[in-house]
Amino acid sequence: MSADVIPLPLKEPPKQASLGPILSLTATAMNAVNAVILDRMQSEIPLIPALAGHLISGGGKRMRPMLTLAGAELVGYQGSRHHKLAAAVEFIHTATLLHDDVVDGSDLRRGKAAANIIFGNPATVLVGDFLFSRAFELMVEDGSLKVLKILSNASAVIAEGEVDQLTAQRQIETSEERYLGIIGSKTAALFAAASRISAVVAECGEAEEKALDDYGRNLGIAFQLVDDALDYDADASEMGKDRGDDFREGKMTLPVILAYARGNDEERTFWRAAIQGHRSSDEDLAHAVELIRSHDAVEATRERARHFAQRAIDALAIFPASKAREAMVEAAQFAVSRGY
Amino acid sequence: MSADVIPLPLKEPPKQASLGPILSLTATAMNAVNAVILDRMQSEIPLIPALAGHLISGGGKRMRPMLTLAGAELVGYQGSRHHKLAAAVEFIHTATLLHDDVVDGSDLRRGKAAANIIFGNPATVLVGDFLFSRAFELMVEDGSLKVLKILSNASAVIAEGEVDQLTAQRQIETSEERYLGIIGSKTAALFAAASRISAVVAECGEAEEKALDDYGRNLGIAFQLVDDALDYDADASEMGKDRGDDFREGKMTLPVILAYARGNDEERTFWRAAIQGHRSSDEDLAHAVELIRSHDAVEATRERARHFAQRAIDALAIFPASKAREAMVEAAQFAVSRGY
Repeated sequence: MSADVIPLPLKEPPKQASLGPILSLTATAMNAVNAVILDRMQSEIPLIPALAGHLISGGGKRMRPMLTLAGAELVGYQGSRHHKLAAAVEFIHTATLLHDDVVDGSDLRRGKAAANIIFGNPATVLVGDFLFSRAFELMVEDGSLKVLKILSNASAVIAEGEVDQLTAQRQIETSEERYLGIIGSKTAALFAAASRISAVVAECGEAEEKALDDYGRNLGIAFQLVDDALDYDADASEMGKDRGDDFREGKMTLPVILAYARGNDEERTFWRAAIQGHRSSDEDLAHAVELIRSHDAVEATRERARHFAQRAIDALAIFPASKAREAMVEAAQFAVSRGY
Repeated sequence: MSADVIPLPLKEPPKQASLGPILSLTATAMNAVNAVILDRMQSEIPLIPALAGHLISGGGKRMRPMLTLAGAELVGYQGSRHHKLAAAVEFIHTATLLHDDVVDGSDLRRGKAAANIIFGNPATVLVGDFLFSRAFELMVEDGSLKVLKILSNASAVIAEGEVDQLTAQRQIETSEERYLGIIGSKTAALFAAASRISAVVAECGEAEEKALDDYGRNLGIAFQLVDDALDYDADASEMGKDRGDDFREGKMTLPVILAYARGNDEERTFWRAAIQGHRSSDEDLAHAVELIRSHDAVEATRERARHFAQRAIDALAIFPASKAREAMVEAAQFAVSRGY
């Protein structure tokens, strides 16, 4: 019954890449962004900075604002408009994380108790709304309708992706195509927008905008694929979220899609029951991880991620070689080497 | 222990006002707004229009977009930009209603099952986010940074008001001043913004903008005061939400604040227990309604509402007499005559 599987070339993991270069490249500007973030998450209502600060100071990688800052370096932008806009991007992201925690009923986020566990769902929803509004206030202050268009559209697409993911939840028949559509919306749209707006503030032109959009979008897909792989990778090093969350929530991610597609009848029966929520014990999770391993579904997911990371890297070819470009290339390599 | 109460003049209720004139005034334009709303709540993700449509076609009064349309009539605006912007206002409002239903755990909204009951909290949160993003997309299409500033600021203030209300929940010592601050943010800010933007698109000038802002803001406060009075008014005619919701949720609204302030020690003991959630049976609600009645707290709340409605009406004095102005005056009178 199961489809024939083309044996995967057992590629070497890419060289041990790091975020070091992109972190150095953007460190000074990121201090300015952090100052904006701290300043603009304030409110006369004390619960707002308390709740927002719990997540914002909770050690996220600031990947999305970092893309805005790195892009600005890449195109040689000399101004400071991108600081506010990068803060707006991080606020949008933080708002979606807060709402995700409510949607998923998460216990952990970035290795500590999720905001909804400490502050409750109501406050978490509302502070998300506040940060989302603040993001738009920051963009309005900047005054670029083009940036506003890019980020308001990205926000709508993120919400669509999240709803689509909800609809696909516990649906074992979800296809790889649909999954790619979902992560393209819920994750990659903001990566693309964050990256693109650096070219907008620098007034580079359409080709540069498009190239940075492509870079961010493909990088975002690669990041999400690896995140989803790590949730089933028995060997992977530590993660911020609870291992096995996706499994217990019946989320259809690529490792499951591939293991199901490649599985025999008995295995498919297990997956159907598990994704519907009837097999969610620790033993069931261990069995799921074993099935995924036996079909090389984590490695296949990583292979897909490498494909998108390579597209991200190649999108940068229109820019002349520079320290910024090197750092952005290595960030894409890092995205797919995590957990080895 | 209780403060002396200045006896209230038992005013006649205002003449039986109606929304008829403002509905007629804005009927044609509202059709255009509804077309925008229907068009822009669509998505390739079927759950989005299904959930949004449940609330949007659920018979709301469209008060906020109506203010934008009426204001445009008042100032003689001839264009059609206000159609999209009024739709954006309604989307922002709808997003906050969806999130409110999750925050309050509502069962009913506008007399039928709340979206969260039918579609669940996760989808309700996310579709709220979608509509909120769509609102900004509509504003960006219009292209006025001034309108974007007004509505992004209003959105942040609404969220602050909602969080503040959450913080005040079950806090019997909440003062009238704080309560007025909360409803000024959570309700009146969007009334004010919706009204103000009509003067912005018509390029009227600061005085007209300010007058329409004042009209909307005071009207919004009056509306909310009457809503809160009706939740404890034994004689009032039908309402969309469950009678007694505020009581059971421990929400500090003006009827409770006044009854507590005017109550004796024994009554205050009851209120403390009730607002903390220890007295929430039907008998307790009946007792609360009786205490509120005995201290004329519903009528006093209505009297406050009449004060703000009058300020709304007087704010229109800078505009020449017109059919539009008459209709807006009567809308303010209607706001405070509901439920008699």
